[in-house]
Amino acid sequence: MSPGGNTLFSRLVAAAGPAWRSYTRHEFVLRLADGSLPEGAFRHYLIQDYLFLIHFARAWGLAVYKSETLAEMRRAQALVAATLDTEIGLHIDYCRGWGIDTVAMAQTPEALETVAYTRFVLDRGLAGDRLDLEVALAPCIVGYAEIAAESLADPATRLDGNRYKSWLDMYAGAEYQALAAAAKSALDEQFARRGGDGRFASLAAAFTAATRLEADFWQMGLAAMSC
Amino acid sequence: MSPGGNTLFSRLVAAAGPAWRSYTRHEFVLRLADGSLPEGAFRHYLIQDYLFLIHFARAWGLAVYKSETLAEMRRAQALVAATLDTEIGLHIDYCRGWGIDTVAMAQTPEALETVAYTRFVLDRGLAGDRLDLEVALAPCIVGYAEIAAESLADPATRLDGNRYKSWLDMYAGAEYQALAAAAKSALDEQFARRGGDGRFASLAAAFTAATRLEADFWQMGLAAMSC
Amino acid sequence: MSPGGNTLFSRLVAAAGPAWRSYTRHEFVLRLADGSLPEGAFRHYLIQDYLFLIHFARAWGLAVYKSETLAEMRRAQALVAATLDTEIGLHIDYCRGWGIDTVAMAQTPEALETVAYTRFVLDRGLAGDRLDLEVALAPCIVGYAEIAAESLADPATRLDGNRYKSWLDMYAGAEYQALAAAAKSALDEQFARRGGDGRFASLAAAFTAATRLEADFWQMGLAAMSC
Amino acid sequence: MSPGGNTLFSRLVAAAGPAWRSYTRHEFVLRLADGSLPEGAFRHYLIQDYLFLIHFARAWGLAVYKSETLAEMRRAQALVAATLDTEIGLHIDYCRGWGIDTVAMAQTPEALETVAYTRFVLDRGLAGDRLDLEVALAPCIVGYAEIAAESLADPATRLDGNRYKSWLDMYAGAEYQALAAAAKSALDEQFARRGGDGRFASLAAAFTAATRLEADFWQMGLAAMSC
Repeated sequence: MSPGGNTLFSRLVAAAGPAWRSYTRHEFVLRLADGSLPEGAFRHYLIQDYLFLIHFARAWGLAVYKSETLAEMRRAQALVAATLDTEIGLHIDYCRGWGIDTVAMAQTPEALETVAYTRFVLDRGLAGDRLDLEVALAPCIVGYAEIAAESLADPATRLDGNRYKSWLDMYAGAEYQALAAAAKSALDEQFARRGGDGRFASLAAAFTAATRLEADFWQMGLAAMSC
Repeated sequence: MSPGGNTLFSRLVAAAGPAWRSYTRHEFVLRLADGSLPEGAFRHYLIQDYLFLIHFARAWGLAVYKSETLAEMRRAQALVAATLDTEIGLHIDYCRGWGIDTVAMAQTPEALETVAYTRFVLDRGLAGDRLDLEVALAPCIVGYAEIAAESLADPATRLDGNRYKSWLDMYAGAEYQALAAAAKSALDEQFARRGGDGRFASLAAAFTAATRLEADFWQMGLAAMSC
Repeated sequence: MSPGGNTLFSRLVAAAGPAWRSYTRHEFVLRLADGSLPEGAFRHYLIQDYLFLIHFARAWGLAVYKSETLAEMRRAQALVAATLDTEIGLHIDYCRGWGIDTVAMAQTPEALETVAYTRFVLDRGLAGDRLDLEVALAPCIVGYAEIAAESLADPATRLDGNRYKSWLDMYAGAEYQALAAAAKSALDEQFARRGGDGRFASLAAAFTAATRLEADFWQMGLAAMSC
Repeated sequence: MSPGGNTLFSRLVAAAGPAWRSYTRHEFVLRLADGSLPEGAFRHYLIQDYLFLIHFARAWGLAVYKSETLAEMRRAQALVAATLDTEIGLHIDYCRGWGIDTVAMAQTPEALETVAYTRFVLDRGLAGDRLDLEVALAPCIVGYAEIAAESLADPATRLDGNRYKSWLDMYAGAEYQALAAAAKSALDEQFARRGGDGRFASLAAAFTAATRLEADFWQMGLAAMSC
């Protein structure tokens, strides 16, 4: 039996076919892991990821509204709080460490790829229910945990002298891995309560589309190498 | 086997228990059918039903937005059009026939019961998906067809000289019955595609709540007997 | 010049006319302040207010989604957190102190009045923008602060031996008064940034409707005197 | 005085600066007008424009929900109907004329540029009010009318033997020009009723972002020249 077992997440990954590894093993990821990613690419990614986080917090605010139980509301609220109180702050510190002017960063226009993925997620969440919203967010939340863990296990990865080591450490760390595991459990719980196999095709199509949009986000970073 | 068979609608009615007949066999309905309903009660109902129709059209506009297929969009769009182009016009003519000042009507404040049912439906539709929206609308759309058909079949009903005969005829007529039958089929189709038994408890709770809010709407009419 | 000056809130109160005092000086409030309110009325109110708070938290979750700036998001997020982490807990403790079975409480069906006000607010917020949402919430947030402060200043109020003193103290307290003052400032800030006098008529109509729905909420409590 | 005068639309175009002409005078447009656009580019554009139209209909469904008056609802409903009943049908006929397999077309994945613009519009409409929604749609609705009229007036345009003549004729035709003029009037009416100068900066930022996303849509067509 595969490690993911028969969770909704593992079924969605299977349904995404090669699109999943095109995202999690994207050249941006491989070069970040072996340290060969140009700094301009990473810097461009960081700035757009900051703009992304604002919409990520909006998505979890929407999830508070769309909750059916107090427990669901509390999990969504914790993710809004973590994004606004912690992640955005960490991101700003981190960007400052990379010499990014954080005032300018907040005023950078969103790239096409940032608009596409963030608004796709929000539309899925508004047109559908909370399960639709969380499935569209899963390539991001769970995907980052998988990317970091897989990179650390990859013999091609070099951590010595790798400028991006702290990025890998953060997403491979226990705290983030637990958050991603909770997101996977939430998918199963909601699929049992709001789903049924009739929904799988539609959820899988959205998951695959979101996965492709995440790969486009890496590609955007890579394309900015000379920035 | 019962006439409703094992449709989602018949299961929702069964889950609503006595609340369903408290709505479909409400004193307002019985007295409308035997002609003993005071005109003031009917007039108050008509005015609030006009205000209700505006939000009903909004609900089907929302359903256009929430559609996943062109066929779903077309059905929702046809219901927006029927409400705005036909029903609201018929309603205005009908109200005029009842001596209601239709300009004043449009400015009447919504009753508590009108606000409660219409906004409950819209919130279900926005917090959930299109199936949640249609389940919340079903006590209205399908219920009215059932109320009219059942009234015509009831020996206590008197059509001779009944001021409300045209109301019964409209909802018992082939056109409205077909619309209600299509709404029932749509519930089954969406439950197969987006549902599964895991969702039933939540759908049934919303259907029962909406049924109670519809009974409150009749009660509002009845309470206004002396208007 | 009146203490409220020319704030948006004071203009909305003025536009609401007698509806405002019918709410803030409702018999439920006056009898709560002089201690003559029957316990059954208060208990019914407390239970429905608990159910109300859940939708209040949903409304602020929606406000996170609808924010245009990080500062707006943070204020909304703080109100979700305060509601879920503090208020709902306090409410449960308080209800327990009043001998209410808090498990049963969470399963009590929402009263018509609870459905009407909460869903009206959410619909205003979804159909309109964040200013529409906050205006619909203002009779609640700012109104409670005014009701408590005004009650404490009223010679007819009796605090000695008044079972409801702690309720008045909570809403007249510095913490809640500051929260209400921030809500008033936020209205002005948003009206400047998203408004203009063209919007006033629509905002005032919604504020007045919400005020009436709040008065209906008191009336619901009063009507349950014998519970 | 310029023909646009001091309408909200003309102010939004002025605020967009060079982004406006980068869209309306995009190389895709110029080559379509002089007939030198490769067929592959046009074909790719047509297919994505079909997928775009589905979300365009969803946006007007949302506008029905977000309407404050019956007149507003009717205009939105007419645009849903025109899109679903007429435009999508015409589009399918037109695509067939260009040798596009229309079944395959409906299953083509949305391009990044299609996702970005359509979901940006829907998010603006859900996070904001109907004016936010219509401003985000204006570069499309009004822009196409301007592009076609300006192309016909441009001496570099060649209609003789131009494969794309019917496209220009459709958008320069009286029917579409009237629809665009109505959209401009609606912006002014809504800005007076829901706006005020305080909103202009936010509306202009969204209009400019939407204009850039439309230019990206042309660019997507151009990039597919060899398809």
